[in-house]
Amino acid sequence: MNYPNGQKKVISKKASSGRANKSFSNRGMSLEDDINTTNQFYLDVNRAIIHKKPTPVQIVNVDYPRRSAAVIKEAYFKQASTTDYNGIYRGKYVDFEAKETKNKTLFPLANIHEHQINHMRSIVEHGGICFILLRFAALDETYYMQAEKLFPYWHDKLNGGRKSIPYESITQDGFHIPLQYQARVDYLSIIDKLYF
Amino acid sequence: MNYPNGQKKVISKKASSGRANKSFSNRGMSLEDDINTTNQFYLDVNRAIIHKKPTPVQIVNVDYPRRSAAVIKEAYFKQASTTDYNGIYRGKYVDFEAKETKNKTLFPLANIHEHQINHMRSIVEHGGICFILLRFAALDETYYMQAEKLFPYWHDKLNGGRKSIPYESITQDGFHIPLQYQARVDYLSIIDKLYF
Repeated sequence: MNYPNGQKKVISKKASSGRANKSFSNRGMSLEDDINTTNQFYLDVNRAIIHKKPTPVQIVNVDYPRRSAAVIKEAYFKQASTTDYNGIYRGKYVDFEAKETKNKTLFPLANIHEHQINHMRSIVEHGGICFILLRFAALDETYYMQAEKLFPYWHDKLNGGRKSIPYESITQDGFHIPLQYQARVDYLSIIDKLYF
Repeated sequence: MNYPNGQKKVISKKASSGRANKSFSNRGMSLEDDINTTNQFYLDVNRAIIHKKPTPVQIVNVDYPRRSAAVIKEAYFKQASTTDYNGIYRGKYVDFEAKETKNKTLFPLANIHEHQINHMRSIVEHGGICFILLRFAALDETYYMQAEKLFPYWHDKLNGGRKSIPYESITQDGFHIPLQYQARVDYLSIIDKLYF
């Protein structure tokens, strides 16, 4: 199910902040929750300004019982034309996507879209820092993979090759991000090593 | 009415591309439409990658008649915590807001929010290019104003001063952007002059 549910998001957000105090373990928490927590921490300490873009929605019918309380009565999820996260870090433009899988041996490329890859290519071409955060939920492991390393796998897929990235390739081409307390998925530490 | 309506947006988008072929005049077209057209042109010619963020919506109830056709049945507009537009240009992070008024002599600060100003301050602090596009609809004039020039007016407002920016100040502190054919609101040309 590709469609994020706003209500669920709010519930899990509350659950996550309570849970974070008890344990660094990530089981049961979504990658999105972890990244939101991380981005909020980066904001709080003024380290970076990175936000998740709102879910794109095509609004069809809105009720205005009062001016201050418009209710959307009919709307549809739209496919995102870009990645989900972007912002600025140490003066640089940062742009990334996040995906998780329950698979333990490979990462399916199915839930990445062609136009997202094209967007990522453009970002790299224009000098931005672009990457993907991949989580193997069953293994409780999260990896940072530079967009440049992702493209060859996409190229292979388009040319009739495998439709996934093997786990071993991700551990080799990517960088493992150990879970932490406040900056739970501390991807900026990888950026520090790679670009500064 | 601060709330953008998705349906209306689609209709006006079609109207705008038809209209753009006939005249450079902007009457009847919204600033948002013009910026979207401009950003699409920048994308098409690979000059910059700048997108409008989706309207933030709190989704409460979703119907799944079939997996492929989720219908949002209840949702609410949320206040944006950032500006509406961001992206990358010549390797730099770009971030801006756009507002229009029907007033001919001043620009009311009422529809800019405190947290948007705070966001803009942070962007400037982190080395991003940040500004606001202001349109006087009745005059058919659009201005680029650097965030740094906007802050003093906001500061005055918070301290009991005037709640608007006089037209004359905008013409002095800002840069007029003449309407053009393809890059209708060619704000990158102002950035070129200011930062490169």
